[in-house]
Amino acid sequence: MPGPLAGVKVLSFGRMLSGPYAAMLLSDLGAEVIKVEATGYGDPARFAEPFIEEISSYFLSINRGKKSITLDLKKEDGKDIVFKLVKQVDILIENFRPGVMDKLGMGYASICSRNPGIIYASLSGFGQTGPYALRPAFDMIAQGMGGVVSITGEPGRPPVRVGYSIGDMGASLFAAVAILAALHERKNSGKGQYIDVSMLDSQVALAENACARYFATRKIPKPAGSRHPLFTPFQVFQTNDGHIVLIAFHDDKWEAFCKAAGRDAWITDSRFKSNAARLENYDIFLQEMNAVMKSRTTKEWMEILEAGDIMYGPVNTIDQVVKDPHIRQRDMILEVSHPKAAKLEVVGTPMKFSRTPCRIDTACPDLGEHTDEILADLLGLSTEEIQKLRKTRVI
Amino acid sequence: MPGPLAGVKVLSFGRMLSGPYAAMLLSDLGAEVIKVEATGYGDPARFAEPFIEEISSYFLSINRGKKSITLDLKKEDGKDIVFKLVKQVDILIENFRPGVMDKLGMGYASICSRNPGIIYASLSGFGQTGPYALRPAFDMIAQGMGGVVSITGEPGRPPVRVGYSIGDMGASLFAAVAILAALHERKNSGKGQYIDVSMLDSQVALAENACARYFATRKIPKPAGSRHPLFTPFQVFQTNDGHIVLIAFHDDKWEAFCKAAGRDAWITDSRFKSNAARLENYDIFLQEMNAVMKSRTTKEWMEILEAGDIMYGPVNTIDQVVKDPHIRQRDMILEVSHPKAAKLEVVGTPMKFSRTPCRIDTACPDLGEHTDEILADLLGLSTEEIQKLRKTRVI
Repeated sequence: MPGPLAGVKVLSFGRMLSGPYAAMLLSDLGAEVIKVEATGYGDPARFAEPFIEEISSYFLSINRGKKSITLDLKKEDGKDIVFKLVKQVDILIENFRPGVMDKLGMGYASICSRNPGIIYASLSGFGQTGPYALRPAFDMIAQGMGGVVSITGEPGRPPVRVGYSIGDMGASLFAAVAILAALHERKNSGKGQYIDVSMLDSQVALAENACARYFATRKIPKPAGSRHPLFTPFQVFQTNDGHIVLIAFHDDKWEAFCKAAGRDAWITDSRFKSNAARLENYDIFLQEMNAVMKSRTTKEWMEILEAGDIMYGPVNTIDQVVKDPHIRQRDMILEVSHPKAAKLEVVGTPMKFSRTPCRIDTACPDLGEHTDEILADLLGLSTEEIQKLRKTRVI
Repeated sequence: MPGPLAGVKVLSFGRMLSGPYAAMLLSDLGAEVIKVEATGYGDPARFAEPFIEEISSYFLSINRGKKSITLDLKKEDGKDIVFKLVKQVDILIENFRPGVMDKLGMGYASICSRNPGIIYASLSGFGQTGPYALRPAFDMIAQGMGGVVSITGEPGRPPVRVGYSIGDMGASLFAAVAILAALHERKNSGKGQYIDVSMLDSQVALAENACARYFATRKIPKPAGSRHPLFTPFQVFQTNDGHIVLIAFHDDKWEAFCKAAGRDAWITDSRFKSNAARLENYDIFLQEMNAVMKSRTTKEWMEILEAGDIMYGPVNTIDQVVKDPHIRQRDMILEVSHPKAAKLEVVGTPMKFSRTPCRIDTACPDLGEHTDEILADLLGLSTEEIQKLRKTRVI
């Protein structure tokens, strides 16, 4: 059963993460994604470590299921092929720095004149407009400028980044939502349009709650470790052999916790008996809690808290995540096939459909693996024409 | 000009963050979102601090532009209204714990029998299937179990959470993508479907790169502060008066940095002259870099790095984010109107469309503000019928 976007065609000029992750979402959903890569070199992500059987794990993870065509975009014949391909697709994705596609003659106006129905999405660090538009950006720049770094980490310690590249992937997700909204609109209007999504804007959109608190109070939100600013206990605690998330701030849950932990006296202890009291006496509360939580292993706490119907969760390391039986049962770890490698694992999709499920079963393409197929099938080029393009290093 | 989803109707049972944020994305895009809230009480987020002119800033931020109808879902008349409303909408969103909608008689089978074209999206902590399905979850639980906490923070220090609630919003974004993909598919098939998105699955999908590294090497990814694991300098440094992100690991950029920083000798220093050398001698490299970076203010560094065409960015606090001229010019900070408050600020949307721009200009609804309007206009109820429903506390 094909996914919900079966029949949709995407031409992706995405490189590294933000563009490719957006295109991956569409590919996972059943769209045919044609990845345009520089002749002879390809997406720089192909060189990102570590490798597994000579395949970049970075590249594999976000390019599974796509087709690859190589094209020299600076050669006239390369441009010609793009101009023909855009007539065959519904969506174009690119994440060059603003101005690059224009310089190549492939800006929105040019592409739209060839296919007015195309949905053309540009992902960039700062967007196509505004004073920072032309600045280069990596994930860390967007995280730093967008505020998340200022609210992540321990109070009084150096700033830390979010451990995954949400600066890039945030933009990818918003771009995918926008692209599909435009696809819906096109069914009514018959017209495509241009979409401009930036990494920085996306970070601001994700930091909405911190901004909202600031708008209301004019107090600058600060990092708070793993702690919830308003409720306690609602944080990570160290156990005898690891860590655990414990959430027991509701009166009934706090009472249940005190009993489960063998600290019945805390139920009536004026320092700890209400959420407000615990917040007021947080330093001593934390000290006492730390002592209690360290007295048992994570597994012991999980059993005790489970029995007491108290909300908890482990702090899983990545090896624990990928072997977790629930995560496995949810098809979040999949194997994809590759002619050159026995077995490649990738992360699945969280988008679960009852009628048109996603299917993720193909690895990433080799550089230019589908060049001939695309030129022949989509553009009707002959073997001789393709040979000539190869000889002149257009493909 | 209405947004790309103009004409699309959404019935949202979302509470707190994950469901409401997903519905907000659709609302920002022009869909009409009808928010169903418990009679007399409403979404618990209405009580989340801090308040601005008696409006919860938490609630405002993610419910702007929606309509509110109150309904007692346990009363037969309340259920009847839901069964009539679902015939009028395209999309249903809910984020109760699995089983709750079924118990209310509003599970997918029941709703689908009344409107086979409906797209019914459930957001939950762990999804509708699998061993953890019925466990409760908050953002912190999903962050902890999904692995991001294990790769965020400083090495050897306690685990920290991502400063915004990506555990919730990650699921919201994937759900919005899935909903719009299903909406596209429906135009071809005429059929709706059920969508199951979990917070935990979404975290795994976002941690794809850490998983990919683990699949390739079987080494467990660890937190690395603000540092890039493969390139240096590529991290936050402390300056004389704050912090700055500096990215200068490419040979030419490193040379440019050394000159700009007045450390020309480092260009030929065998300890520092290549990225590989700097990684190998990271401890002494960091010590020397810290000394250099602390010698100037952030503003001074920004000017020096700008002049040297070296990639950098500030680490903005939230007050700096919301007043940043670029972010302002990108319409990421907007004012919305509310009859009871002079001026309310909210964060804008990163989804910028050339032809059908989003419009965000209305504040959050009061509890049940649109109950009468919806019952009269959508369901054709008379004033007397509505009065009777109010008397029996159905609405």
